[in-house]
Amino acid sequence: MTNAPARGFPTEEFATRTARAQAEMAQTGMAGLLLTTEPEVRYFSGFQTLFWQSPTRPWFLFVPATGKPIAVIPEIGAELMRQSWLDDIRTWSAPAPKDDGITLLTDILAPFAGRGDTIGLMKGHETHMRMPLGDYERLIAGLGGLRIVDATGLIRGLRMVKSEAEIDKIAHICAIGSRTFARVPEMARESQPFEDLFRAFRREGLAQGADDVPYLVGGADTGGYHDVISPPSRRPLARGDILMLDTGSVWDGYFCDFDRNWAIGQADDLSRRAYDVLWRATEAGIAAALPGATCRDLFHAMQGVIAEMDDQGGDVGRLGHGLGMQLTEWPSHAAWDTTELVENMVLTLEPSLSYGDGRIMVHEENIVVRAGGAQLLTERAAPELPII
Amino acid sequence: MTNAPARGFPTEEFATRTARAQAEMAQTGMAGLLLTTEPEVRYFSGFQTLFWQSPTRPWFLFVPATGKPIAVIPEIGAELMRQSWLDDIRTWSAPAPKDDGITLLTDILAPFAGRGDTIGLMKGHETHMRMPLGDYERLIAGLGGLRIVDATGLIRGLRMVKSEAEIDKIAHICAIGSRTFARVPEMARESQPFEDLFRAFRREGLAQGADDVPYLVGGADTGGYHDVISPPSRRPLARGDILMLDTGSVWDGYFCDFDRNWAIGQADDLSRRAYDVLWRATEAGIAAALPGATCRDLFHAMQGVIAEMDDQGGDVGRLGHGLGMQLTEWPSHAAWDTTELVENMVLTLEPSLSYGDGRIMVHEENIVVRAGGAQLLTERAAPELPII
Repeated sequence: MTNAPARGFPTEEFATRTARAQAEMAQTGMAGLLLTTEPEVRYFSGFQTLFWQSPTRPWFLFVPATGKPIAVIPEIGAELMRQSWLDDIRTWSAPAPKDDGITLLTDILAPFAGRGDTIGLMKGHETHMRMPLGDYERLIAGLGGLRIVDATGLIRGLRMVKSEAEIDKIAHICAIGSRTFARVPEMARESQPFEDLFRAFRREGLAQGADDVPYLVGGADTGGYHDVISPPSRRPLARGDILMLDTGSVWDGYFCDFDRNWAIGQADDLSRRAYDVLWRATEAGIAAALPGATCRDLFHAMQGVIAEMDDQGGDVGRLGHGLGMQLTEWPSHAAWDTTELVENMVLTLEPSLSYGDGRIMVHEENIVVRAGGAQLLTERAAPELPII
Repeated sequence: MTNAPARGFPTEEFATRTARAQAEMAQTGMAGLLLTTEPEVRYFSGFQTLFWQSPTRPWFLFVPATGKPIAVIPEIGAELMRQSWLDDIRTWSAPAPKDDGITLLTDILAPFAGRGDTIGLMKGHETHMRMPLGDYERLIAGLGGLRIVDATGLIRGLRMVKSEAEIDKIAHICAIGSRTFARVPEMARESQPFEDLFRAFRREGLAQGADDVPYLVGGADTGGYHDVISPPSRRPLARGDILMLDTGSVWDGYFCDFDRNWAIGQADDLSRRAYDVLWRATEAGIAAALPGATCRDLFHAMQGVIAEMDDQGGDVGRLGHGLGMQLTEWPSHAAWDTTELVENMVLTLEPSLSYGDGRIMVHEENIVVRAGGAQLLTERAAPELPII
C-alpha cells in the first residue's frame, strides 16, 4: 500500500514503554508485573501473532523492576519471540495440562515471595486473566508471602496515551476504513441480502489495504435499525431501510472503530432528524475534546445535543471510548469516568440515541487529542443522511 | 452460497444441550453452572455476536439444575438475546466499573450460597474466566458458603461431541476452505510480497462463502519455512521457497482449521521428503481415528511415521486437536491425552516435523469420527508437494 507507515516499532519504543512502567512500579512499590493478555504482552515485547485466537496455550510476560521483560511462552512461539528485543525467553512444550508454564513462573516469582514482595496483575475494569483460573490458584498457593496488587491503573495510564508511531498506524487504518466506507454506495443495492454486503465490505477493506476486518456489525431495517451488535441476516436491503455498518479493521495490530449510516432509496423524516442530532452531537464532542477536559465533559457535551431527541440515555452505556491495540480500550465517555484528556489519547466519539418504535442510531468518529484540540483520524461523515 | 446449511439451530438443539448439562450436573452434585466465555454462552443460548471482541463488558450465563439458562448481560445485547430461546434475560447498563453485573449475579447465587450449594465454573485446561479477576474475587467474597468446583470436564465432554447440525456447519466451512486453497496456485506468484498473498487469500475465502477468515498464518522461505505462527512479511515469494498457509475460516460461528504447502518454481529434495513423510503420517492418523481409540493412539500412529525423519517431537506440542466453535478445542493428540474417540468428534490431524537447518513443516486435515472411521471434511492434500 502506498504511504503505509513502517510495520513494527523501533526497539527504543519498547524500551521507553518498559522504563515508564518501571518508573510507575517504583512509585507504587511493585517489584514486578505479571501479564497474561495479548495487548499487554505485545505492548512490552512487540510479539504479534494471530495464534492468540487459539485458547489452548497461556502466554506470560514478566516485567521486572529493572531490565528487559522476561517471556515465559510455549515453545511454538520461541522463533517469533526471538525476533523481539527481549533477551530472556523461557519456553515449555505446550500444551501441558499438568504444568502449563507454572514451574517456569514459580522459578521467577519464588524469590519475590520469599521477600514478601508485591507483584502487579491486571484485575480491574475491562481486563481478564488469560490463563486457567485453576492454574492461577495453584501458582499463588505455591507462592506464600507474595502480595498481589491490581496493576490495571498502571497499564491503563500507559496504554491510553499513544506514541506518534502508534498514532500513525491508527491513522493509516482509519484512512483505509474511510476509503472502504466511501465505496459502500457502489456496493450496496436494493434486494441485496445484508449478509452479502458484509462480505463485499470485508473484501473491499482488504483491497484498500487492511490486514483484516475482524469486526463488522451493523443493522438495516425499514425506518431504522433495532440493534447494533448483530451478525447480518439474509434479509434483502429494501427501499426505506436505514443501513448502518460499523467496522473494526486492523493494520499492523492497530484498530480503527467507526461506523456510517445510509438510507436505501429514501429516508424517513425521523431518521433524518436522528442523523442530524447525532452529527451535531459528534461536532460537540469534537469541540469538547481538549486536553484538560474529562471524559465526563465529553459525555455531557454530546448528551446535551442528543437530549433534543432522547433524554433517556441509550442502551450502549457510553458515548465512545479509547482505541488502539484493541477495538475498545479505556477510557469511557460516560458520566462516571472523570479521566482527564491528555495529548495523544486516541478516542472514539460514539453518540447514539433511541427513537421512534424501538429504533436506535449510532454515529462514530475516531480522533486523537492534540494540544489545540481534536484531530480527526476518520473522514468526517456527511452532515446529512446520505441516500443510496 | 449454494448448498449452505441453515444458519442457527432449532430450539431443540439448545434444549438438548442444556438437558445433557443438567444430567451431568445432577450426577456431580452441581446446583448450577456459571459461564463467562463466548463459546459457552453461545453453546447454551445461541447468542452470536462479534461484539465479544470488545473486552469492555462481561457477559454471563447461569445454567440452573432445571429449566432454561438465565442470561445476565449488558443492556446493549438485550435485543439480540431476546431472539434466543431464553426467557429470563437480566441486563444492566454496562460498562459500569463499580457494578458490572455483580449485583445481578449475587441475586442469583445468594440462595445457593445460603444452602452451601456447589456451583460449577470453568477453571481447567484451555479455559479462562472472562471477567475481571477483581470482580470475581469480590463476587465470591460476598457469597460465603458457596462451593465452587471446576466444570471444565463437564463442558468439555459436551462440546467435544458435535451434533449433525454442527458437523454440517464445519463441513461447509471446510469445503469453502478447500475451494480457497485450490485457488492459491492462481493467486501466488514469484516476487509477490507474502503480505499481498495473505490479503488475496482472505478475499478469496470471503468470495468462496466464508463469513470471515479471522485466522491466517503461514511461512515462506528458501528450502522451508522456520515458523508457523507469524504474520506475513513484505518479503517477496521467490523460486525455491516452500510456502505454507494455515487458515481458520468461519461460517455461522464454526471454524475449519487446516493448511496447505506448496513449492514456488521448484522443490528441494529434503522438503519433498518432509512432505511425503507428513502426508503418510496424516494417512496413518486417518486410519487410526476409530471410535474406541484414544488421542494418544492417534498421536503414536502419526509420530511413528514422522520418526522416519524427526524423532525429537516438534515445537508444536501436539499433532492435532478438537475443532468447532473455536479454532482449537479439546482434546489434544498427544502422549498425555488418553481421551477416547467417540462418534461425531470433529478433529484436526496436524503432523509436523523439524528438518534441515531449523526448518519446520506442518500438514493439517479436518475429520469427523464416524462409526466406520474418519470421514474427511477437507479435500485431501495432494500426495506430492505441489509446485506453483
